[in-house]
Amino acid sequence: MRVIRSVKTMQRLVSQARRQGKRVGFVPTMGALHEGHLSLMRRCRRENDLTVVSIFVNPAQFGPTEDFKAYPRPVKADQRLAGKAGVDILFYPSDKEMYPDPYRTYIEVEKMTENLCGKFRPGHFKGVATVVGKLLNIVQPDVLYLGQKDAQQAVVLKQMVRDLNFPVTVKVCPIVRGPDGAALSSRNVYLTPQERRQAAVLFRSLQEAKEKIQSGERSLAAVVQGIRRRILKETSGKIDYVACVNAQTLEPLSCVDGKILIALAVRFGSTRLIDNILVQVR
Amino acid sequence: MRVIRSVKTMQRLVSQARRQGKRVGFVPTMGALHEGHLSLMRRCRRENDLTVVSIFVNPAQFGPTEDFKAYPRPVKADQRLAGKAGVDILFYPSDKEMYPDPYRTYIEVEKMTENLCGKFRPGHFKGVATVVGKLLNIVQPDVLYLGQKDAQQAVVLKQMVRDLNFPVTVKVCPIVRGPDGAALSSRNVYLTPQERRQAAVLFRSLQEAKEKIQSGERSLAAVVQGIRRRILKETSGKIDYVACVNAQTLEPLSCVDGKILIALAVRFGSTRLIDNILVQVR
Repeated sequence: MRVIRSVKTMQRLVSQARRQGKRVGFVPTMGALHEGHLSLMRRCRRENDLTVVSIFVNPAQFGPTEDFKAYPRPVKADQRLAGKAGVDILFYPSDKEMYPDPYRTYIEVEKMTENLCGKFRPGHFKGVATVVGKLLNIVQPDVLYLGQKDAQQAVVLKQMVRDLNFPVTVKVCPIVRGPDGAALSSRNVYLTPQERRQAAVLFRSLQEAKEKIQSGERSLAAVVQGIRRRILKETSGKIDYVACVNAQTLEPLSCVDGKILIALAVRFGSTRLIDNILVQVR
Repeated sequence: MRVIRSVKTMQRLVSQARRQGKRVGFVPTMGALHEGHLSLMRRCRRENDLTVVSIFVNPAQFGPTEDFKAYPRPVKADQRLAGKAGVDILFYPSDKEMYPDPYRTYIEVEKMTENLCGKFRPGHFKGVATVVGKLLNIVQPDVLYLGQKDAQQAVVLKQMVRDLNFPVTVKVCPIVRGPDGAALSSRNVYLTPQERRQAAVLFRSLQEAKEKIQSGERSLAAVVQGIRRRILKETSGKIDYVACVNAQTLEPLSCVDGKILIALAVRFGSTRLIDNILVQVR
């Protein structure tokens, strides 16, 4: 596995690969790799000739009061894991390489970035769209792999790719969970053992909601209430939001129909966890 | 010359060309082609294996009170001129092909879009950056050719290309002028014969300013005043702005030094003309 720190070198390497007719797959990450990331890398490797992974903790997507500085950066362990997953090129740029001074240009996806996490993290998706736009121009992949764990991010980036005509196919991969059902997250390391046990309640409440809908529940308010009550009863977490939305557009639902995304964000101390589940009605 | 109306077909054609090792040059236009555009196309043809030109009157860069509907669209004449200039592919998409509903994503270059034309045309450069970002992803050129006539646009797009890491080289080509010195513009067709004669005063006033600086004038206020006075005296135009700025950053100058851009915008009735000149001091 080659580790590349320069944008120019990265662009040169993929241009060469593409001229040789190689199919390039790309997994962007912020490092602190866990089985969720690794499942994307392994799938990328199966489906492409060249697997590129980026590790970049993107300052532009953190708010001023958020955990940019504290975000885990286990560089050595990450390199070992990426190598074992069969990654060909690890792109690992510095902040200055990605945002040289003066930096002026941002990509914004309107409307679908305003609700859910967007409401609690103003500017977050502007930072995400901008850095992924940059990475797509640097890595020029044929296929971009994203995780369903960040459901809003995946919808926003699909819209960006479509709107700006990036010549790439987006594949969204399923959430990887621990044995207790809790979604794997780089931020789980912040949790106390007690909070980590409670984190599994998020998934159980989502699963219960899904089963309710599948058994015929048609009141979204009741579904959301059920999740909120269970989280408040069984955990010490504070709820940012629990919402049922259209899985493709993230718009509010007028009735229980089609592909539904039930998503939530809960804070344990200063650690914010997100999780979601998809429900297909008819 | 092939005329392509679909994004997918355009992307397929350039991907093929690039796999064959061809160097792709690209000239984006809004049509109503004149010698300014054609000079870009001929240079593009000399320097590349495949010359792609787009004609798209981009609704996103016109304000609600501007001339989007009235903008000249001489399609047949444009095709003939592009063909004669040796263009290989003319990309001529519909509004709906470029902005399918629901469209949500915009590129914004901050700060350097706030002064000069940006002050009088809010949202204009957001529309320009967005459409050129899209076109770069559709045409995937090695070289992008822009005209110096739209000086602020060229600076903004160079910043966008650098910031978002588009793998393209930007070349800015000189202004082409009529025999009287007036810059060629698709909007000149709106002018009355009298206004068309007066339009040449814009360039003469810029030239006079350049000569003053080259002869030692070091008061920017005096330079700007000289231009304003001449335009107000010799034309019926209304001045939007006359400004001396840093040619690279478009920032205000603290002293007369380095590469200076003197730029102006003047309205004749509802027709807005722009022009500019570069002065290298030392």
